[in-house]
This record gives sequence, structure tokens and C-alpha cells, in this order.
Amino acid sequence: MKVCNAKRLQETIDTFAQFGKTENNGVTRLCLSNEDLEVRKYFIQCCEELGMTIKIDDMANIYATLPGKKDIPPIVMGSHMDSVEKGGRFDGVLGVITPLEVVRTLRDFNIELDTPITIVNFTNEEGARFDPAMMSSGVLVGKFDKEKMLQSTDKHGTTFGEALDASGFKGEELNRLKEALAFVELHIEQGPVLESEQKDIGVVEGVLGMVCYEITVNGESNHAGTTPMKHRKDPLFLAAELITQLKNELGTLDEELVYTMGRVNVSPNIHTVIPNQVTFTLESRHQDPKVIQQVEEAIRRLPSQAQGCTVSSQKLWGRDTVVFDSIVTDSIQAASEKLGYSSRRMYSGAGHDAQFIASIVPTAMIFVPSVNGRSHCEEELTSYEDCYKGANVLLQTLLALHDHYTSKEAITSNKQ
Amino acid sequence: MKVCNAKRLQETIDTFAQFGKTENNGVTRLCLSNEDLEVRKYFIQCCEELGMTIKIDDMANIYATLPGKKDIPPIVMGSHMDSVEKGGRFDGVLGVITPLEVVRTLRDFNIELDTPITIVNFTNEEGARFDPAMMSSGVLVGKFDKEKMLQSTDKHGTTFGEALDASGFKGEELNRLKEALAFVELHIEQGPVLESEQKDIGVVEGVLGMVCYEITVNGESNHAGTTPMKHRKDPLFLAAELITQLKNELGTLDEELVYTMGRVNVSPNIHTVIPNQVTFTLESRHQDPKVIQQVEEAIRRLPSQAQGCTVSSQKLWGRDTVVFDSIVTDSIQAASEKLGYSSRRMYSGAGHDAQFIASIVPTAMIFVPSVNGRSHCEEELTSYEDCYKGANVLLQTLLALHDHYTSKEAITSNKQ
Repeated sequence: MKVCNAKRLQETIDTFAQFGKTENNGVTRLCLSNEDLEVRKYFIQCCEELGMTIKIDDMANIYATLPGKKDIPPIVMGSHMDSVEKGGRFDGVLGVITPLEVVRTLRDFNIELDTPITIVNFTNEEGARFDPAMMSSGVLVGKFDKEKMLQSTDKHGTTFGEALDASGFKGEELNRLKEALAFVELHIEQGPVLESEQKDIGVVEGVLGMVCYEITVNGESNHAGTTPMKHRKDPLFLAAELITQLKNELGTLDEELVYTMGRVNVSPNIHTVIPNQVTFTLESRHQDPKVIQQVEEAIRRLPSQAQGCTVSSQKLWGRDTVVFDSIVTDSIQAASEKLGYSSRRMYSGAGHDAQFIASIVPTAMIFVPSVNGRSHCEEELTSYEDCYKGANVLLQTLLALHDHYTSKEAITSNKQ
Repeated sequence: MKVCNAKRLQETIDTFAQFGKTENNGVTRLCLSNEDLEVRKYFIQCCEELGMTIKIDDMANIYATLPGKKDIPPIVMGSHMDSVEKGGRFDGVLGVITPLEVVRTLRDFNIELDTPITIVNFTNEEGARFDPAMMSSGVLVGKFDKEKMLQSTDKHGTTFGEALDASGFKGEELNRLKEALAFVELHIEQGPVLESEQKDIGVVEGVLGMVCYEITVNGESNHAGTTPMKHRKDPLFLAAELITQLKNELGTLDEELVYTMGRVNVSPNIHTVIPNQVTFTLESRHQDPKVIQQVEEAIRRLPSQAQGCTVSSQKLWGRDTVVFDSIVTDSIQAASEKLGYSSRRMYSGAGHDAQFIASIVPTAMIFVPSVNGRSHCEEELTSYEDCYKGANVLLQTLLALHDHYTSKEAITSNKQ
């Protein structure tokens, strides 16, 4: 069985990690920053050396395509090379490096496929410089309005549109990804499940649906020293009880459910003043919309008045669960088994470009383990061995999808 | 019985409220700001018109003294004229205005006392521009180090020392308040007790002891979407439970105990990230040191580890209960009764210059009601009627203390 070149992959990972390298071995490669532009140029150079053709669309998404023997839509692999501030050297970029290694391996073995192979680098997946995350894949599939996106502004006042114009990477709208046989995105898990269950590969069946609420408890500020307890309307005490109540209720729903109160704001937040307002977010994810509904019901069951305070909740946003294509997930699982790697089916709790692309192309994702589940930090780590296994699964998945779609193509052709 | 002039008092309150008047009928009169300097000049003018002598000490405390018939230490009344940003028009300044009305009333009735009468305006009671609060009374009694205070810096980088030099109100150290027969500070209650119990006057027996702790819960940050609940070390859930636990325990101690968790900081405070740290303050006040000790024991009983998180606590500060002089408190109570006003004995939960002065001069305070217990805001309100009652109590207290100390003086003199 053909496998990738472990040493070359390791060197490629190390080379890409030089672009925007931080003191503690992470990377800062904000979207369309100098570091991002430099890594893009290097990526294009690598692809051109492999005889790939480069196209760039109007959102600066880069498509490097290795021609196929037939004039049919490509199989697409890819992810993003931008990072958060002081992020890791695996998040995103590993999903661009591993397809590169796959194409190099095809060349090593002089394998020519019927289908074109495209490696895509999506612009601004992180949303760290320009809000929102997954901006360009969102524009591709009509989820986001391009004109609004161009106005998105970084903290220095530069708009995404201005950065795009200055980047040298603004291409043509007609180059956008439209038709493809399949899309596969390899990514680090960004969670602890694969590591703790000692699995090599995550076969990602979809992206969890989620809701995010903000719960507001209003009370009355007064002097902490002069206001007897019975005269108080203290929203902090009530908020603490509601947080515990919600935690306990959600804890009974489903063990796969995750829920986080990540942001708490207390006003005026002075030790000698009874707060007048406490807000906290409740963000929860699960693949089953019925479980998410139960979360929303728990929020609706909160009292509207208690302890002299009022309680209200506002849904900040939600997204439906995205279910990936079973042909692609089955191919990933079969590839893992063929290689003798352990794997588990799972949903992604985090958002990825793949969740948008899934609406126009049969899509799935491959996860590789994250040490301690850490990501978006300099400590982010996936062993070279696990990266190598991921690359091999990507290669075998590609070959399997190729066989699937070209035989299907053959059948379709025969029918005509 | 001699009483003050209600109309004149009302006019004086309104006039003083013009200095630093805010849009919503509050005042912003930060320590040694232009507004503070202007009201000081007006106060001095009022006092000089009454034949009072002005002295200013090295901390810009102003002493206006009406000579007595005998060369004995004065009876002192006063408070402060500085305010917080957008504060009220009663906090502090009413304790300067009412003595002014008292002296005016003495002049109305041609009453000449044996003792000199001094009205004091303390510099920087609020600590709103220069930390700490009660700065100058603290320096007077050796609680604060003057050199350190001179270095205290406002948000624009100006030190208290620089503001003092530029103010025109820097006087001589030898003018500091040293010896006095008694000190009486009238102040708004800043709490709801008098209003809710429909009492006219609070006879303030002391200032509550207090402690302030910061409790820190450390956990581990991770992605809110990708980290299963069983892998989490979420300090927010634990902090919420500890807040409720402390609230419940402290609720059993003593109904006079007050306790506030006024400041809560969550890090990194992002809705999609499990927090790694939550800190919250617990500030508690009670007159009995044994009850405060029980509060500290409840904090010490917090678990040091739970739910994968660690818990620690740090005492930020504390102060012992200050007990005022019974001769002065009894005089206040007797004055209230004589005037037919309802009163109750109480402790001040808030800090006041009087708590420091009490260490060098027999001291007590008079409280007048605060509408809805509000203070340090533009809505702060004490009815003119209640201000008038306070002024009358101050006048009668002064006369009673005068009689007490001069008869005592006489007795002492007889003995010699």
C-alpha cells in the first residue's frame, strides 16, 4: 500500500511553522498579514513545483490544481493557513500541508488520477483579525454577504476589503469553488477525545449544532456597607444560583452535550458596591436538535423574577447541526482500517470551513489527536506520527473517493 | 428652644450644590478640582462673614474657627466637600453646611459660647480622584504616611502633591487638628435603615469593622465546543457553587451582618472558551469582631481543591470596629429627644473621616435619612426637612457638649 513520506512531511510542517513563528514555537499568522502573505507565496511555490495550476478567487481563496486524466470536477482537499494571535502550528495549516504531501506522494509513485486534485486554502477561517470566522467559505456558499464582509474592520481600522486590495491575492469571482466531487478537510481535533481514548483518527460525521444565550439578571446597586441584607436586590447571588441550576439540569440531558458559561459580566464590578446587573452566556452544543431544544427549554424555565431581581434571556445565535456526506465519511473510515489505524466516529464541536462547503459539495473531515486537547495556543501539539497517519488516511481516502467517483462517472457515462 | 433657619439652610444647600453641578442635579467635585477649589473659596467666604478665623493645614484641610469666650480647645464639627464623579449633593457637604447653619443660628441669637467652635472641611474623603479614601484625616492621626499620599496619582498622572501645590490651599502642618473637646460629623446615612424605619436621626455609635477577601478559583481553559464535560476543569461552575455556599453560611451568622460579592472577574471571559480562572471578592462588615471572625472561618473552610480546580483566598484588607465616644452619642440622642425627633442607635457601615478622628478626639456622628438608601449617585436625596432636623440636632448637641465640657472645665479649674 502506498504511504506518504514521514520525514518529508515532518520537514514541511517545520518549514510552514517558520512563517509567523512565535517565541514559544507557536505562530501568529493573522489573515492577510505579512506572515500570511509569505506563507501563501511559499505554498504556491510548493504547488507549482508539483505542476499544479494556481487560481485565486475574489475572496483570496487559493486553489492549486493537479490536472486529472479526465475533464471532470476535482476532488478537493484543504483548510486554512491563517492563525489566531499566538496560535499553534497545526490548526488549519496541517489541512493544507497534508494534501501537499499527498500530491507529492502521488508524484513519487507516478500515480496519475482521472480526477483533478485541488488543494484549497481558505481565507480568514479564524476570524481573529476580521470578524466573522469562516468568512470566505461562508461567502462561497452564500452564508455571508460579500459586501458586508469587505467592511469588516480589524482593530487598527483596516477593512478586510482594503487588506484584500493590498494583498496581491485578490482574484476573480469566476475562480470560486463551485463544483467538486468531494471535499475532505483534515484538521486537529482541538479536543481531548482522541488522545484520551487512544484513537489515531477521528472520522468526523458532522459539526455540532449549537445555541448561545445571554442571560441577564437585573438587581439594584447599593452601598455594600450600609445596606442590610433584607433590603438588597443582589443579582450576583441569584446569578450564581441560576448558573448552578442550569449546570445541574443540563447535566441530566445527555452525556455528549457540552455547555459553557464562558463570559460573565458584573456591573459595576466594585468590591464595595452591590452589583446592579450580572450577565452570563450559556453556549451549548449537541448533534441532536432535540437535545439542543431541551437546553433552550431549561433556559426558558428560568424564573423571570426572584430575590427582588428580574431575569431575562436573549438568544445570541444558533446553528443547526451539519451532517457530512456518508460516502466521504465511510471512505475515511475504510482508509483508517486499511492502514491499521484505530479510529472513532465523532462530531466536531468547533466550526470549520467544511461545514459551509458541505452545503455545495459532498464533504467530511479527518481529525488527528491534539495533545491535552489544546489549540489556539502556542502549546498546541499533534505528534509528527499522528500527522503522518492523518496524511496517509487522507491519501487513501482520496484514492478511494477517486475510485468511487470515477467508477460512478464511468457508469453515468455508460448510461448516456 | 433655639432652632435653625429652615429656609436659609435650604438656600445654602442649593447654593453649595451649584459647585460642580451635573446635568441630573448631582455634583462632580473631585478632590482639588476647580469645582472643589471654588466651593472651598465660597465656604471660606461664608465663614469669614461670620467672623470666623481660617486656618489651613499641610493637607489642605480647612478649619474655620469662631472664637470662644475662654481659651480652651474647640468643639469641632465638619465633614468633606469633595464628591465622587456624578455624586450627590448631600454626601459630605451636608456635614459642612449644617455646622455653618449652626454658627449662623448662634449669631442670630447672639449666643456666645465659652468654647471656640471649629468647622472643618477634610481634603479627599472620597478617594475618588486620589486613592485612598479619608486620606487627610488618615494623615492627621498617623494612619497614612504623608509622603506616600503625596505620590498618589490620579488617572491623568497628576499626583496629589502636585494638585496640592497648585491648589493655593496648601497650609502649615502646625495648623493640623490636634486638640479638641469633641468632634461631631453629620452625614447622610447612605443606607435605607432610617427611611424604612421612619426615623429622623441616626445616633451613630461607631463604624463597622470589615474584612475584604479575594477568592480565586483556578481551572483549565479549553475549547467550549470540543471538550467533553468529563474532561473539564471549569472554575466558573465551582465559583458559582462557592458563592452560594458562602452566602448560605454567612446568612446564618447574624442578621446585622452584611456581605457582598461585588467584583467577579472571569478569564479569558469569552463565550466559546471554558474559563481558566474566576476571582471574586467577599466583603463583609459587622460591629462585633467575633462575627467577622466567623466570616473569616467560613472562607477558610472553603475546599482547596474541588472539581479539578484549586481554590485559594487572600485577605485584601480589614479594619477593626471603631466605637465612638458615649458622651457625644448620648448628647446626640438627648438632643434628638429634646427636639421630639425619632432616632435610633446604629453603626455606620461606610467609612468616614470621623472614624480616624475618633482616635484623637471624643467623636460621634449624626445620620440623616437617605431616600431609597441611595448615595454616590445623582439620585442621592435627603429631604430639606430631614436636613433641617439634622442641623437642629447638631446645634443642640453642640450646646449640650459645650455645657458638659465647660462645666467639667469649671470643675477641673475649681480643683486646681
